[in-house]
Amino acid sequence: MAGGIGSRFWPISRTNYPKQFHDVLGTGKSLLQQTVERFDGICPKENIFVVTNDSYGEIVKEQLPFISDDQLLLEPCGRNTAPCIAYAAYKILSQNEQANLIISPADHIILKEEVFKGKVRQGLEEINNNDVLLTLGIQPNRPDTGYGYINYEEYEGEVKKVKAFTEKPDLETAQQFIQSGEYVWNAGIFLWSGKAIKKAFQTHTPSLDKLFDSTSYYSQNEVSFVKEAYQKCESISIDYAVMEKASNVEVILCDIGWSDLGTWKSLYEVKDKDIEGNVLEGNVRAYDTKNCIIKTPKDRLVVTQGLNGFIVAEHDNVLLICKKDQEQQVKGFVEELKEEKLSDFY
Amino acid sequence: MAGGIGSRFWPISRTNYPKQFHDVLGTGKSLLQQTVERFDGICPKENIFVVTNDSYGEIVKEQLPFISDDQLLLEPCGRNTAPCIAYAAYKILSQNEQANLIISPADHIILKEEVFKGKVRQGLEEINNNDVLLTLGIQPNRPDTGYGYINYEEYEGEVKKVKAFTEKPDLETAQQFIQSGEYVWNAGIFLWSGKAIKKAFQTHTPSLDKLFDSTSYYSQNEVSFVKEAYQKCESISIDYAVMEKASNVEVILCDIGWSDLGTWKSLYEVKDKDIEGNVLEGNVRAYDTKNCIIKTPKDRLVVTQGLNGFIVAEHDNVLLICKKDQEQQVKGFVEELKEEKLSDFY
Repeated sequence: MAGGIGSRFWPISRTNYPKQFHDVLGTGKSLLQQTVERFDGICPKENIFVVTNDSYGEIVKEQLPFISDDQLLLEPCGRNTAPCIAYAAYKILSQNEQANLIISPADHIILKEEVFKGKVRQGLEEINNNDVLLTLGIQPNRPDTGYGYINYEEYEGEVKKVKAFTEKPDLETAQQFIQSGEYVWNAGIFLWSGKAIKKAFQTHTPSLDKLFDSTSYYSQNEVSFVKEAYQKCESISIDYAVMEKASNVEVILCDIGWSDLGTWKSLYEVKDKDIEGNVLEGNVRAYDTKNCIIKTPKDRLVVTQGLNGFIVAEHDNVLLICKKDQEQQVKGFVEELKEEKLSDFY
Repeated sequence: MAGGIGSRFWPISRTNYPKQFHDVLGTGKSLLQQTVERFDGICPKENIFVVTNDSYGEIVKEQLPFISDDQLLLEPCGRNTAPCIAYAAYKILSQNEQANLIISPADHIILKEEVFKGKVRQGLEEINNNDVLLTLGIQPNRPDTGYGYINYEEYEGEVKKVKAFTEKPDLETAQQFIQSGEYVWNAGIFLWSGKAIKKAFQTHTPSLDKLFDSTSYYSQNEVSFVKEAYQKCESISIDYAVMEKASNVEVILCDIGWSDLGTWKSLYEVKDKDIEGNVLEGNVRAYDTKNCIIKTPKDRLVVTQGLNGFIVAEHDNVLLICKKDQEQQVKGFVEELKEEKLSDFY
């Protein structure tokens, strides 16, 4: 899933070149490329499908030269995760009813790649043996109010039955979740057998089943068929359309160095800090500067003095200077630009 | 005098394009152009001489198209104000021994132009009638420790006899100066008869008189003569070389809306502030931002959040973010870049 815009990561994440296509961590690979590489040894490259917005097709081809047109699923418009997953699932099932699906966002990071692979292998075994919808649950290390939480039944073993999902709780609730020890973060990474996900759509969101169960895949009609289906379907998340309704959901507990890199603060959290608590990327001279994340183009000299706890981010024609603990406002800055149709800047 | 570099005004003021050539106030005219226009009706254009560094000759010609080569005095290197003034004075006197000289820096602003013109006319009368070295003294409105102070004898009239000069006093001393009511700021603007300044050089700095009293002006030898003179002469300010030693120095008290625009804070002081106390120049969206001066290129969007009392200045390939009350550090930032020979950035 590589269709999002990631406006909380503005100004680096932009409508015409969103976060997943950037080398956010400075490793030389984009988040999309890292996501694909993470499945080396688990899924052959020809079985990797990328769902993204129509307008990002060329970027995906450039970043993943192995991708064939059949593996590149172009959405005419964004309709949240449920239609995106339905499109991919029904297309794959039209070729192979026995397929297992691993669904993953393309804009997250996982630092412990080998642990992740072990969990995925364990998960594939689970879904081969049981009629369950499996999701990866991340051991939380703080009461983050920006994530979804999964409440599971406590018993022996790493795979647990899910009792409930809670999207973005308030701080007090999040703190209770952490203390109870019966909650994990929802990473939005799912492992499903084709059979199980088809049954789930039929049961819980029959409208999507009806729209996407088609014989048009792998034909010259696919583009126009998909265009029509997206026009007709509602915008709805997979959590709301399926996961929160199904009774056969399980979670596999993971400690895999995961971050959704959703915000500047989350990037700050995963990066090594210098002795002053700064993350400095670019040609930066930081005087009396503490606890900042500064990410600017290398050819520009940035001199800071007296900043404490700020984000300084410059990309293309935009400079952002924002308090780190006020980063939730960034999305609002972008929304204002959108309202004013200042498309050069978002 | 348009040869300085103004490094406290970095990163807009740069070695290859210093402050005096910038439209610092956003009026559509550079400080040099404003300085020249200020003498409309006082001094005909053909009597305006610009002394600047050799490397800025082309910029001056571009900004002041009326300037002939004879009016453009190019220094092979910076030697502070005394050699600069000696060069101009002896060149002018070689053509006209009766000339009066008005010496002015090109990187200051004067908001009350008509008041200034009145003072200059009054001053010219004074130096025509008396053998005095006249300087403009600015009524101080705060105990600024960045300026030079002139102590004068208190008696009737606007032209006063000078008792002493004090360069950049400490805060306590500056406060005493202000309270005494017998001090004004030294604006570095001087009115002298040619005769008086020649006598002053002969008496107080005979080495400069010897070096610059020459028949080479307005000849093909001028360039090589000046080159040699600058190689031989010391770097010394006119205050130290002449003004502090002479006994016939007078000051004319002025309230002319003067600022040396030496620093970011001084630009902040002279500009209109918005309701939050901000001076915003550029495409700036300031959220929860107070008491800041932000000057950035118009084609770049700048979003700030949570800044209080900062300078944000972007020019060419440099971004500066610095606390306004720590602006005295700016000069040091530039010096470090010079030490490391990072000439792209200063």
